[in-house]
Amino acid sequence: MGDCWLKCNLCAKTAPLDTMKGKCECGGTLLVEYDLEKVKTTFTPENLQHRLHNMWRYHDLLPVRNEASRISLGEGCTPLLRMNAAEAHLPLKELWIKREDQNPTGSFKARGMSMAVSLLHERGISKAAVNSNGNAASALAAYAARAGIEAYVFVPMDCPPLIVEECMQYGAHTCLVDGLIHDAGRIVEEGKAEQHWFNVGTLKEPGRVEGKKTMGLELAEQFGWRLPDVIVYPTGGGSGVIGIWKAFRELREMGLIQGEVPRFVSVQEEGCKPIVDHFEELAAVRHGRVHSPAESEVTSKPTGMRVPSPPDPQLLVSILREMNGTAVAVTSEEIEDAAKRLGAWGISAAPEGAATWAGLIRLCDEGSIHSEDRVVLFNTAHALKYLQVSTPNPMHIVKDYPEWRTLIR
Amino acid sequence: MGDCWLKCNLCAKTAPLDTMKGKCECGGTLLVEYDLEKVKTTFTPENLQHRLHNMWRYHDLLPVRNEASRISLGEGCTPLLRMNAAEAHLPLKELWIKREDQNPTGSFKARGMSMAVSLLHERGISKAAVNSNGNAASALAAYAARAGIEAYVFVPMDCPPLIVEECMQYGAHTCLVDGLIHDAGRIVEEGKAEQHWFNVGTLKEPGRVEGKKTMGLELAEQFGWRLPDVIVYPTGGGSGVIGIWKAFRELREMGLIQGEVPRFVSVQEEGCKPIVDHFEELAAVRHGRVHSPAESEVTSKPTGMRVPSPPDPQLLVSILREMNGTAVAVTSEEIEDAAKRLGAWGISAAPEGAATWAGLIRLCDEGSIHSEDRVVLFNTAHALKYLQVSTPNPMHIVKDYPEWRTLIR
Repeated sequence: MGDCWLKCNLCAKTAPLDTMKGKCECGGTLLVEYDLEKVKTTFTPENLQHRLHNMWRYHDLLPVRNEASRISLGEGCTPLLRMNAAEAHLPLKELWIKREDQNPTGSFKARGMSMAVSLLHERGISKAAVNSNGNAASALAAYAARAGIEAYVFVPMDCPPLIVEECMQYGAHTCLVDGLIHDAGRIVEEGKAEQHWFNVGTLKEPGRVEGKKTMGLELAEQFGWRLPDVIVYPTGGGSGVIGIWKAFRELREMGLIQGEVPRFVSVQEEGCKPIVDHFEELAAVRHGRVHSPAESEVTSKPTGMRVPSPPDPQLLVSILREMNGTAVAVTSEEIEDAAKRLGAWGISAAPEGAATWAGLIRLCDEGSIHSEDRVVLFNTAHALKYLQVSTPNPMHIVKDYPEWRTLIR
Repeated sequence: MGDCWLKCNLCAKTAPLDTMKGKCECGGTLLVEYDLEKVKTTFTPENLQHRLHNMWRYHDLLPVRNEASRISLGEGCTPLLRMNAAEAHLPLKELWIKREDQNPTGSFKARGMSMAVSLLHERGISKAAVNSNGNAASALAAYAARAGIEAYVFVPMDCPPLIVEECMQYGAHTCLVDGLIHDAGRIVEEGKAEQHWFNVGTLKEPGRVEGKKTMGLELAEQFGWRLPDVIVYPTGGGSGVIGIWKAFRELREMGLIQGEVPRFVSVQEEGCKPIVDHFEELAAVRHGRVHSPAESEVTSKPTGMRVPSPPDPQLLVSILREMNGTAVAVTSEEIEDAAKRLGAWGISAAPEGAATWAGLIRLCDEGSIHSEDRVVLFNTAHALKYLQVSTPNPMHIVKDYPEWRTLIR
């Protein structure tokens, strides 16, 4: 089966990578496995120092074997920024923010799509489709364009207009769907046989998780192979959570990291919080209580976190438990305030990234952040992609300094 | 005078860095000079391998002495991308694109403002102002926010609305000016004494050129200390041109690069092309012809290239001549086509970046690009910042696959 293969997280059955499947017959999720004994002979801190500054520096722990197959637009190696100004306000030791907004398509989705599209390119696949809340769609559009693959993207009709424009700019067949992300996903599934689409939706193939895994690898390398104590991460479909968890598991197995794993915190918006619900449900069951969250209406804003039916919530909840983590929901008002707060420190935070700040404040209020904690927030996308363009306030248009001076009085 | 000082490019008079001046009494431009004999003992390819992945890796060749003074949001170390797909269409050897759009504020202006704001922070200056076509304004807004400095930004009223929003998001005092960039500049100059603004406009202080210099340092390092043959660069105020030229001059003086300097090509838009005019005027005079370009109306689009009165056109033209370069003007239609062309290859190109592709096509048509040339285009900003949001075409909204299928027939 070569250097890597697929393995089911539930029944442990294996399959060749070439099947390119995301789901096992048993219903579990198929994840890429590596011969880590072999990988660790080349994947060393010393070797990494001499490699490219993009996510492909971790190539020995990635499923694309042929260098010529890599479809790269310069993804990964995003800055990890210390937030000294914020630390003063919080009961923790260090606060860091990972700037995933600086990826080629302005979001962390670039990593997953770089990997997925490379796998398709390696196999001569010529058409790909995705359902998305926006950023995965524009990332597919860009990487497919780079690879000469035709992209078909399906996003909810309330997707931020700039992201829709972005998809079209990259030449993707772009379709707005009167429904939510799973409605868009149904279209891809129903059409894929007839249209010869390869479905690169969340957990539909093995590449995207591996691309997002590089966020975890990078974090470990940037911190000098000592992981932080807490990671706060905005969660939608969940492949980012799986990717980061998988990174740490593989690094640990290779002996590159030791000690406690970080407490992993998933953040969602109140109006759509299936992971929070699943997590609380499991906790209730474990405590002998009955907890059946009512099927609630989706009222949250159109962001990447709005995924009412994530493909494998059981896996996500088991990861959160394994990592001594939790899941919290924040309101859209808290997210808006958080974006302003981060903006005032010079950080362009998308709603998803802002939600991690809001989530952190909740955790601090609850007392679950400690004075010795080193905390990392993931800003998964650039604020710009969500900004609404307002007509400039005519009050602010001036001709000269005297006029400006009058204005500010 | 310490490790570095200012020196006039015309009369060679020196001044301490602490004067923070941009202009010499003789009218020349003050640029930062270093003790390169000393710098070269630490600034070595070997040492650089072990440094941070941002522009501060070049700290020995930058004017901020105190590490604690660095105001960083993760700028620099942007990808340099090979454009294989494009090469097939062009009479050259290699085409590369430098993705400055992946800087923290989505443009190369982040580099200059990181440096300028660090110098202000080091000196305890608490208020900064800038006139800008947009991207320098939002970069000042972000870095000033990070430093706790108050920012006042003045942009033409037709500045792309998203960039105006971006400035406000970072908390800058944002003012639209009924005029062009130099009208905005007049407001800053008139108000600075009374308002205690430090003017960080183009060539008003020494930091921004030094920040932009890191583009040239990075290019040399990314190419393994062998420079490309041609650089195509969109030009407005010109501090990017000066910065890149200065980088190569310093690297050469330290013995880190040899051989020919790249031919440097400035690109402007037809409706505002003072550098092209100055360059042609000088060429005409040298050939004994009289060439007096009529003062023409500014008709170009609101981009970073629209600078009718750049602060030191003589310096720019002398750099273009020294680098065996040229200046070309392209139409707004060519720029639009170029953005689509680059988009279809997966590159998010701002109008300024797209202009470099349009300029390259012109050069190829003229026969001034050769089959052995390695060419670099600078994509100075992200397309997203300029995108107009259109109301989605209702034709594209569907409910299910059968409806989609009907639609594409």
